[in-house]
Amino acid sequence: MKTKIRTPFFETSVKNYIYGDNVIEYAKVADAASKEYDIDVLFVAPYTEIRRVSESTDRLIVLAPYMDAIKPGRGIADVLPEAVKAAGAQGVMINHSERPMTLSAIKKTIDRANELDLLTFVCADTIVEAKALALLHPDILNPEPTELIGSGNVSDMGYVKEVIKVVKSIDPSIMVEQAAGITTAQQVYDFIMAGSEAAGSASGILFSENPYSLLNEMVCAVNRAKKDLERGI
Amino acid sequence: MKTKIRTPFFETSVKNYIYGDNVIEYAKVADAASKEYDIDVLFVAPYTEIRRVSESTDRLIVLAPYMDAIKPGRGIADVLPEAVKAAGAQGVMINHSERPMTLSAIKKTIDRANELDLLTFVCADTIVEAKALALLHPDILNPEPTELIGSGNVSDMGYVKEVIKVVKSIDPSIMVEQAAGITTAQQVYDFIMAGSEAAGSASGILFSENPYSLLNEMVCAVNRAKKDLERGI
Amino acid sequence: MKTKIRTPFFETSVKNYIYGDNVIEYAKVADAASKEYDIDVLFVAPYTEIRRVSESTDRLIVLAPYMDAIKPGRGIADVLPEAVKAAGAQGVMINHSERPMTLSAIKKTIDRANELDLLTFVCADTIVEAKALALLHPDILNPEPTELIGSGNVSDMGYVKEVIKVVKSIDPSIMVEQAAGITTAQQVYDFIMAGSEAAGSASGILFSENPYSLLNEMVCAVNRAKKDLERGI
Amino acid sequence: MKTKIRTPFFETSVKNYIYGDNVIEYAKVADAASKEYDIDVLFVAPYTEIRRVSESTDRLIVLAPYMDAIKPGRGIADVLPEAVKAAGAQGVMINHSERPMTLSAIKKTIDRANELDLLTFVCADTIVEAKALALLHPDILNPEPTELIGSGNVSDMGYVKEVIKVVKSIDPSIMVEQAAGITTAQQVYDFIMAGSEAAGSASGILFSENPYSLLNEMVCAVNRAKKDLERGI
Repeated sequence: MKTKIRTPFFETSVKNYIYGDNVIEYAKVADAASKEYDIDVLFVAPYTEIRRVSESTDRLIVLAPYMDAIKPGRGIADVLPEAVKAAGAQGVMINHSERPMTLSAIKKTIDRANELDLLTFVCADTIVEAKALALLHPDILNPEPTELIGSGNVSDMGYVKEVIKVVKSIDPSIMVEQAAGITTAQQVYDFIMAGSEAAGSASGILFSENPYSLLNEMVCAVNRAKKDLERGI
Repeated sequence: MKTKIRTPFFETSVKNYIYGDNVIEYAKVADAASKEYDIDVLFVAPYTEIRRVSESTDRLIVLAPYMDAIKPGRGIADVLPEAVKAAGAQGVMINHSERPMTLSAIKKTIDRANELDLLTFVCADTIVEAKALALLHPDILNPEPTELIGSGNVSDMGYVKEVIKVVKSIDPSIMVEQAAGITTAQQVYDFIMAGSEAAGSASGILFSENPYSLLNEMVCAVNRAKKDLERGI
Repeated sequence: MKTKIRTPFFETSVKNYIYGDNVIEYAKVADAASKEYDIDVLFVAPYTEIRRVSESTDRLIVLAPYMDAIKPGRGIADVLPEAVKAAGAQGVMINHSERPMTLSAIKKTIDRANELDLLTFVCADTIVEAKALALLHPDILNPEPTELIGSGNVSDMGYVKEVIKVVKSIDPSIMVEQAAGITTAQQVYDFIMAGSEAAGSASGILFSENPYSLLNEMVCAVNRAKKDLERGI
Repeated sequence: MKTKIRTPFFETSVKNYIYGDNVIEYAKVADAASKEYDIDVLFVAPYTEIRRVSESTDRLIVLAPYMDAIKPGRGIADVLPEAVKAAGAQGVMINHSERPMTLSAIKKTIDRANELDLLTFVCADTIVEAKALALLHPDILNPEPTELIGSGNVSDMGYVKEVIKVVKSIDPSIMVEQAAGITTAQQVYDFIMAGSEAAGSASGILFSENPYSLLNEMVCAVNRAKKDLERGI
């Protein structure tokens, strides 16, 4: 059975900005925040650290950054779905703008992930691509205009609300995340309040003056938004 | 400093035929054989198991199956050289026929590996490609005609001797391995006796009736060839 | 303004089975059939023959087999949209299973084609992919299960009707073609009668005993189906 | 039989900066200069204009910018070697930095070109790559440091002389061209005088104030260098 995610949640990764022990240290800070604020945190780990992140943390939901839609066999440099699962991944990121995939490969990778009960976290660029990918019923859809990634600029609220409406009209069970360009805890709060089920940040945190502190604040902001939403603010 | 390899050596991998704990079990058998016969064994591990193989074994020389010639930064699904090294890899396989690379990328990956003191294990197809790649001075060159890989057929001795001569004429310090199609310990012995500094097998072992036993026999055959060569047989 | 296509139409290509003058000869037969039966025929020409096919025929609607979503500039080996248009192409094939594209590239290529008034002929594999691609509003959608292409087996009528219904529910103006595995004029007739706006065949024609005769018969079959549909049979 | 090239020669292309009739106009200017100065001029034409350039000019030696190492058959969007030859190409550019190829594909493409008597014009980046590719015995080797292409900066003479020496030491029959960053006729003259058998320019010409005039001057400069070399200056 797939891991059950509670919304709203937070998502982060280290891309390839840091490696080795620093990944684990970062993951532990994310895990501590997850526990402190009782918020689910998805962590996209480099292939080489999936197992260690998984074993070193209690509550993080660990994702692989990509996998090939293959079955056990040849392909020495390919990423086998069974291997990322065995290493502790509970899901997989698909079609990130830094690793765009053919539509056919996206479909096949979602199929393989579902076979193995791996969560599918699918990235899209424009609204129409998000809508098209919603038809493949991923668990999470992350529409992030490519030009915003790592830019420090965020999507405007009109885009955010429109994309949520479009995705939900196709499949209300798909969770929609906003991630591109987020650099402050306030943005995290605002996106959740605007109806996103999740917010995410990677370079926005890593390039900040105090990454661990900002990571903690962002998870805190999800919790704050959750409570405000529950209170009907 | 790069890991020093003693010749003749043996090389193996599991490609993506097996995953998770089975990789570790296989690696431990290879490690035990390495110790039993005092023969260096190179093990190409899936990204997700590089660290665990490295930590679970004593003498294996662990290689990544591929890496991107990038520096720390973006590229969430790319394989960062610093990350494979931090995970315990002592080298990297480059240009395997299941992940062919542009000449430019081969050159850049060798450069990055050298910067990080990672052994470079470069695969070639034809003799002329082996010769061309010898000019890039990898540590190990593995010329394997693509059509033989996984076929159960081995290169003939004429090819083997010719390729060794050609490579050594360019750079005598490059170690030459034969791997394509090896399925028996006798072939391992014969290739070493014919002048190869190494023999390798992956699917030949995994598809055999008793993989662990064959793996052990192959490492034993390297040792036997080594002794016979020392005695000048 | 884009070329206006009258339905039902026929589509064919020579892939890379033939080249040079043989392409022109084939195109002329298609053109003659187009005139004889007053049926629009789309012809996907190799890049090198787009201009000559266009200049040697009267009624064929010529398509490029692919183009890069670039603007005039660098990219010496890329296919510039302006160049295929200048050569006489009236449209472009996108995402053929022999050249799968990322979702993002499909979107951008459709955008570029629309800017240049080039018809967009988009291929899909499964029904769900056809539906996803319908959201990008191509002019023509050609859902062909990859495993049928060149196989001599056709899609069953259940698939055909389902895919038409699904595409039309999203955008009734998209023309739906069936092409995979068609080898007889009767199949062409049947697919049109089943509601397809077009039928297509390439290897089915080229591998037949008498390709020119079969090509003519297939265009004739479109005409026959058209008349029967008009008569309400 | 392959087209015989007389050295020193000039090489140019339009990449994708211009298209359609403008390509033909440019080609005609190159052709006129070729005749005026009795210098061979290689012209790399976009796929769609290979035939028209070939038919509209008398002396240009026309090259395709790339081809796939396939045989007639499937691959609707691939570039068939037989097709570019039938369209009038006398050769093919291989491994341009804007379309880098795997070492294996470079080898196979050279083999296919030789089968069809197509001239092979192979690009390299660093000196060591030029040396490696010299082992594949192309007809022409064009070592151009990627960072110089389109930059307006040229290789220094030390690089030029070194690369010629290295290539000739492997195969003296390989013609060596210098192209990256050339923007003036004087540079063309200097490179030929320094021992290059050819000089080339594309963006350097197209971005100049008076492209046709500069193109003519560059071909003239090849002629001037040729005469000065013959006179032993």
